[in-house]
Amino acid sequence: MSDHPKRIHIMEVGPRDGLQMEERRLDVGEKLALVDALAESGLAEIEVGSFVHPGRVPQMADTDAVFAALARRPGVAYRALWLNRRGLERARTAGADLTAKLSIATSETFGRRNVGRSFEETLATMPQWLEIYAEEGLRDVSLGVMTAFGCTFEGHVPEARTVAMIARVEDLLGDHGFRLDEVDLADTTGWGNPLLVSRVVGAIRERWPELPVKLHLHDTRGCGIANALAGLALGVDRFDGSIGGLGGCPFAGLTGAAGNIATEDFAFVCAEMGIETGLDLDRLTDAAHLAQRLVGRPLPGKVFRAGHRRATLAPTDPPV
Amino acid sequence: MSDHPKRIHIMEVGPRDGLQMEERRLDVGEKLALVDALAESGLAEIEVGSFVHPGRVPQMADTDAVFAALARRPGVAYRALWLNRRGLERARTAGADLTAKLSIATSETFGRRNVGRSFEETLATMPQWLEIYAEEGLRDVSLGVMTAFGCTFEGHVPEARTVAMIARVEDLLGDHGFRLDEVDLADTTGWGNPLLVSRVVGAIRERWPELPVKLHLHDTRGCGIANALAGLALGVDRFDGSIGGLGGCPFAGLTGAAGNIATEDFAFVCAEMGIETGLDLDRLTDAAHLAQRLVGRPLPGKVFRAGHRRATLAPTDPPV
Repeated sequence: MSDHPKRIHIMEVGPRDGLQMEERRLDVGEKLALVDALAESGLAEIEVGSFVHPGRVPQMADTDAVFAALARRPGVAYRALWLNRRGLERARTAGADLTAKLSIATSETFGRRNVGRSFEETLATMPQWLEIYAEEGLRDVSLGVMTAFGCTFEGHVPEARTVAMIARVEDLLGDHGFRLDEVDLADTTGWGNPLLVSRVVGAIRERWPELPVKLHLHDTRGCGIANALAGLALGVDRFDGSIGGLGGCPFAGLTGAAGNIATEDFAFVCAEMGIETGLDLDRLTDAAHLAQRLVGRPLPGKVFRAGHRRATLAPTDPPV
Repeated sequence: MSDHPKRIHIMEVGPRDGLQMEERRLDVGEKLALVDALAESGLAEIEVGSFVHPGRVPQMADTDAVFAALARRPGVAYRALWLNRRGLERARTAGADLTAKLSIATSETFGRRNVGRSFEETLATMPQWLEIYAEEGLRDVSLGVMTAFGCTFEGHVPEARTVAMIARVEDLLGDHGFRLDEVDLADTTGWGNPLLVSRVVGAIRERWPELPVKLHLHDTRGCGIANALAGLALGVDRFDGSIGGLGGCPFAGLTGAAGNIATEDFAFVCAEMGIETGLDLDRLTDAAHLAQRLVGRPLPGKVFRAGHRRATLAPTDPPV
């Protein structure tokens, strides 16, 4: 555990990735209250919503209204997700803090089924995206890597293949005058385990020692925090988290992907291990309680329920 | 992660440590069904119940009856907990598989509050226990270490103190012709984190390189599995687990100790990492579903809900 970073950055994805599958529809005021509670806890990057077809993700239909009413705090980046040019234009109009993002799936089957494109077809769409990003003045690209730790359909994805795919994107970016600025590894279907995280991150580190790596992890099979710690041990210092573990549906039957790792659970274990997060655990657990009230179901996060403080009721006795 | 054992042993504590705090009282038939489902999954050591005062733990009042009706499977050790001589006698009469156990708390405050004794007072009671164990022909002693990773009252417990306490017990055992056979580190109040687990296990390994270490972990703050993996990475190969994560009360307010790590979640991540458990994950998840039906509330385990198998629907495409 010697490569632990001193400080990490957590992007909060609860209001978007977390809420999008929730049964209870939050209104604009509720979303604003949640986003503001998150910002108050020190989270400096918050995914507020997505600009996708309202028919496909009704929970996100009012993202424009949420952005319009946002009480922006200085130093906080308010992010959004989009999947096409129209979505990006809505995001810009709404005032979302834009970044240049591209995305691939290491599993061909997953890519074809969920995005409708093979890897080669995905590569072919990238120049159009780069044109748009150039217009926005964005030259540093974050590459999202879906099914980075395996796939429900294909099983294990060889690390060499993941590295080769990323290298193809890097070449394409270079050819167009862009820079690969971050690789965002997503455990899309929840198959990650600490050994796989070590292997995939290790393979990327070996090829690109300086390239920042981010982990987007789900707690589908109970090892989400362990996976995050495997990343930490290799120096990964960027993570996505979801307040209270929002997302998925823990009390349904089979779930393809449960919620993200709970922001406050991860922030807590980091704090306990001496790794700075810049987050206020009291406010973070308050935000988790708020999220739970708003969605109206028990959230899977642990720390907001159990508490994060030690009660020092008696002085420590001297060693025996 | 180079010291990972090839194979681990999990003792199932759900029927005892898990059920004792459950609101719904299981009848003898239900407990038998659960224990048998657990044994069928390959668990070779199961804590069936406890022989304590029925007024204090009503859920365990029928442990004698459960043992009497047990359909014993060959190769399975059916364990029980006792806290005094009368309890041990009940356990022997009932036919529980006995082991010699002693217990200390590294936190003086916890010891005084929960057992009513200081460490020195606890040491003073040990010779009486050893006399009883001698009568039973038991010479190898497992030492339970409560609050091994800190305490709600005292905070961090220095590793040197834990080691010094264990050494005192080892000396006492030697003086009486007994042998320290295992140290069972319990995260009694749920304050463990992977770094602390590494430190405490490391300190014990340094002093006693060959002494088997067992981990009894709770998932109070969401890092139970990560803590178990920190132990694995140092070669720990004995763990307690609780089916479905039974134990504690995840939907109550503040909880001193949530459930143990879920047996099937830990078995799953071990299997994924190539570590043998000897357990059948299908049967284990069946047992978790049964446990959930019996207690009548959603259990926190993840794998029995999400499934543990990858569906290989398409061949893996060749590397790009």
